[in-house]
Amino acid sequence: MRKVEIYDTTLRDGTQAEDFALSVEDKVRIALKLDDMGFHYIEGGWPGSNPKDMGFFDEIRNYDLKHARITAFGATHHPSRTAETDENLKAIVDAGTEVATIFGKSWTVHVKDALNTTLERNLELIRDSLGYLRRHFQTVFYDAEHFFDGFKANREYALATIQAAVDAGTECVVLCDTNGGCLPGDIRDAVTAVKERFPGIPFGIHTHNDSDLAVGNTLIAVELGAVQVQGTINGMGERCGNANLCSIIPNLMLKMGISCIDEENLRKMRPVSRYILEVANVPSNRYQPFVGRSAFAHKGGVHISAVERNPVTYEHINPERVGNRRRVLISDLSGRAAIKRKAQDYGLRISKRDPIAMQVLEELKDLENQGFQFEAAEASFELLINRAMGRSKRYFELLGFRVIDQKLAEEHPPVAEATIQIKVGGKVEHTAALGNGPVNALDNALRKSLEKFYPRLKEMELSDYKVRVLPGSPGTAARVRVLIESRDAQDQWSTVGVSHDIIEASWQALVDSINYKMYKVEKTDRED
Amino acid sequence: MRKVEIYDTTLRDGTQAEDFALSVEDKVRIALKLDDMGFHYIEGGWPGSNPKDMGFFDEIRNYDLKHARITAFGATHHPSRTAETDENLKAIVDAGTEVATIFGKSWTVHVKDALNTTLERNLELIRDSLGYLRRHFQTVFYDAEHFFDGFKANREYALATIQAAVDAGTECVVLCDTNGGCLPGDIRDAVTAVKERFPGIPFGIHTHNDSDLAVGNTLIAVELGAVQVQGTINGMGERCGNANLCSIIPNLMLKMGISCIDEENLRKMRPVSRYILEVANVPSNRYQPFVGRSAFAHKGGVHISAVERNPVTYEHINPERVGNRRRVLISDLSGRAAIKRKAQDYGLRISKRDPIAMQVLEELKDLENQGFQFEAAEASFELLINRAMGRSKRYFELLGFRVIDQKLAEEHPPVAEATIQIKVGGKVEHTAALGNGPVNALDNALRKSLEKFYPRLKEMELSDYKVRVLPGSPGTAARVRVLIESRDAQDQWSTVGVSHDIIEASWQALVDSINYKMYKVEKTDRED
Repeated sequence: MRKVEIYDTTLRDGTQAEDFALSVEDKVRIALKLDDMGFHYIEGGWPGSNPKDMGFFDEIRNYDLKHARITAFGATHHPSRTAETDENLKAIVDAGTEVATIFGKSWTVHVKDALNTTLERNLELIRDSLGYLRRHFQTVFYDAEHFFDGFKANREYALATIQAAVDAGTECVVLCDTNGGCLPGDIRDAVTAVKERFPGIPFGIHTHNDSDLAVGNTLIAVELGAVQVQGTINGMGERCGNANLCSIIPNLMLKMGISCIDEENLRKMRPVSRYILEVANVPSNRYQPFVGRSAFAHKGGVHISAVERNPVTYEHINPERVGNRRRVLISDLSGRAAIKRKAQDYGLRISKRDPIAMQVLEELKDLENQGFQFEAAEASFELLINRAMGRSKRYFELLGFRVIDQKLAEEHPPVAEATIQIKVGGKVEHTAALGNGPVNALDNALRKSLEKFYPRLKEMELSDYKVRVLPGSPGTAARVRVLIESRDAQDQWSTVGVSHDIIEASWQALVDSINYKMYKVEKTDRED
Repeated sequence: MRKVEIYDTTLRDGTQAEDFALSVEDKVRIALKLDDMGFHYIEGGWPGSNPKDMGFFDEIRNYDLKHARITAFGATHHPSRTAETDENLKAIVDAGTEVATIFGKSWTVHVKDALNTTLERNLELIRDSLGYLRRHFQTVFYDAEHFFDGFKANREYALATIQAAVDAGTECVVLCDTNGGCLPGDIRDAVTAVKERFPGIPFGIHTHNDSDLAVGNTLIAVELGAVQVQGTINGMGERCGNANLCSIIPNLMLKMGISCIDEENLRKMRPVSRYILEVANVPSNRYQPFVGRSAFAHKGGVHISAVERNPVTYEHINPERVGNRRRVLISDLSGRAAIKRKAQDYGLRISKRDPIAMQVLEELKDLENQGFQFEAAEASFELLINRAMGRSKRYFELLGFRVIDQKLAEEHPPVAEATIQIKVGGKVEHTAALGNGPVNALDNALRKSLEKFYPRLKEMELSDYKVRVLPGSPGTAARVRVLIESRDAQDQWSTVGVSHDIIEASWQALVDSINYKMYKVEKTDRED
């Protein structure tokens, strides 16, 4: 079985992405996850350019990795120095890794405009830098920066830079589409030329996604024989990002029959993708192939009933193989099959012809016309089914609330205060709270009033709050949809509210969230 | 020059995406934008499956489109009916479009498991349905659903379905990778076989992004001769989405030398991409190729100085050709080149030592850190420059406001009321107003108090109001950014506010909007 090695550069090229920054501790935690996945190489940073990166190399030395070898990255030495006197190369050696990777210039424009040197001197830099590193490292890789652009501009010179790297004894020549501008045909032509000129030489591929082609271009290079694939988790990286390993690895393993990591480790793909987004506090792309929340979400009625009968009809792989799962979305495009399937997810059994299913469907369509959306508010949907089945319970009655937001001068920040009166089992509670804005004040007052009766509400907290202005009415009179995500130690759930009044919409979602928590508590108590 | 036609299905397949829903009005507004881009076909919906779509077809008939032809979508007729008695086909005819597109089954698994009919009967469905539509439409397209999967499973049968469509006289056979599971090689093999079997037949390509290959697979089909490309703006669509036209069109035009839309219209790509996200209120993917906010953003010091000297060093195309622009990211490591460049982005011509410009830049950095964004709030930015240059004027002073939102029982809708006290030239005005929610009440009260002094404020109205929750703080205490769009008979302008308190954030944007209107009035009066 053919094998391809995975070279992850999330910690180095990945951190070139806008708004993606990692501390030394973050980098260590991520490196351990990548090692656990069974990746072969983890590029830890560029010690010569960024002092923070040296901290990572110092720290990671304290861990025994199971699979991965850590690599330190850098450039060929400065034209005005020798390899032996270059600070950048010395920093790579000081990183104390098993593997070193350096990039050199393949494109004449870059040799002249970025490096300010001659074409001949650049070849020396490549040879001398690699030669120097070979004396300090077991393994040295050469990244041929801008190789494909260089090849298009001056084919012979680009190949001469590869010759220099081969002469210096690099273990692998990595061909880079640094600007991400290449088409599949460009990759095919240049890789074919490299194979003809240097038969049998191990080569790798490193692409960027500026043309939306990073994954495709990588696979084409693998088809042609690449033995190493460079990329990042979630495709993070400079500008539009690097080649996305979350897409490349399942394509290689599940479709091209190429071995890279264990099948069992492939199931960690979604958790690891989410983990890195969480650590870096970057919003996830729900539509991301393979690992996104929507990647196996079915909305159209035709699709849902077909996929229920035979998953391959609308799923290219089994989602569990990458740690993901199928989801059925409830919307005005869905029919009774979807309601039935959804009810099953919640352990409720209804047949397609059950009048309750019809009632839920009708109510759903009505609510969606008002702007409700249950796709991202599964807890609200479960409560809706419960109500239709006559199984819902009221945990409290609202007697009234008032929210006051007051600003007393131009320079003063406003003060938000909420008062609330509720009734639980004959007892009235009347209380007040301040907050960071009116919704937060109301949230604080409601919890304060209820925790007295339901102390287990203290276990839950709101983890996310989203507002969407709905189309239809103009300006500040527009209707808004509020989505609230809540969690406790075990679960996470989402609820929704819609109104012209943002406080009312937030109220609806808050009440659903609290009701859902209470319902969960009672269900668990029953089962125990 | 070779030509490829663009077939947009944002309004049909696009709306299969999770959390992407469009009203009839949204669809009309989007269709007009797509027409203005010069797209050739706009698929408006599936009238047989969704009553909302028929509303679109009724409405769009009232417009004279400049370029595009509207198409109605549907399936081959039901196996138990004839083409003449099938409701779904009748709905397509009733849509009254110039063009009809239907899909049929190419994959034996689908014929049996989804359609529940025989392979032979499926061929009849294709022939009869297309034949029927040909009698009602100038142009009929055939979408060969799951063609590539079908070809892999049973090559001869998949080709027989194409034969049926060709026999029935379809204008274009569109080969679909419906599940998005194909690799570049799969596309190459199947398209090559179609070309051999049906030489000269016009064919199109329709791909999905489940394997992160939709754009690459589309380009490969175009390399092989496809004359029509189906896709959506921003790649919206079921699961991981459809092929992204925002990537495909610039690749075709700027790299493959293929003609599809006017060069001038290509510059609308980023504005149109943003427009659709705004209309549907879907968060943008900042890393999106070509049109994303980060697509030409440079962070690394090496990249910034190289790109300043020669843009091709790290940019695969000139960003302006797709309506985007280069951005230099300001971070702790930014040099003076980055600061100066940032000033240019905002139209400031400064020497590095100008104290006013430095002050604006400092304030900008500070506000952007707080979550302000001036890209979509140019009026707020202009006011900010005016303040720094000592040219701003205060039109009123706020003495205080109070907003009260009160709900008196569970079933009662809340009542929102605002009171406000302002001072203009020594005169105090104290008034109150109700509203559709607290922000609307405050908006109403502020205008009521000011119109007495500035009657020309009656000329302006708020045309849009948007809220985004900013990452950082948890739950309902999160900071929000409010964007307000205002207009009068001549202009349209946008303003921004950021706060933990949605009412304060709205207040900031409202005040900027009113100040901008007054500033415009005075400037015009001076010029007259």
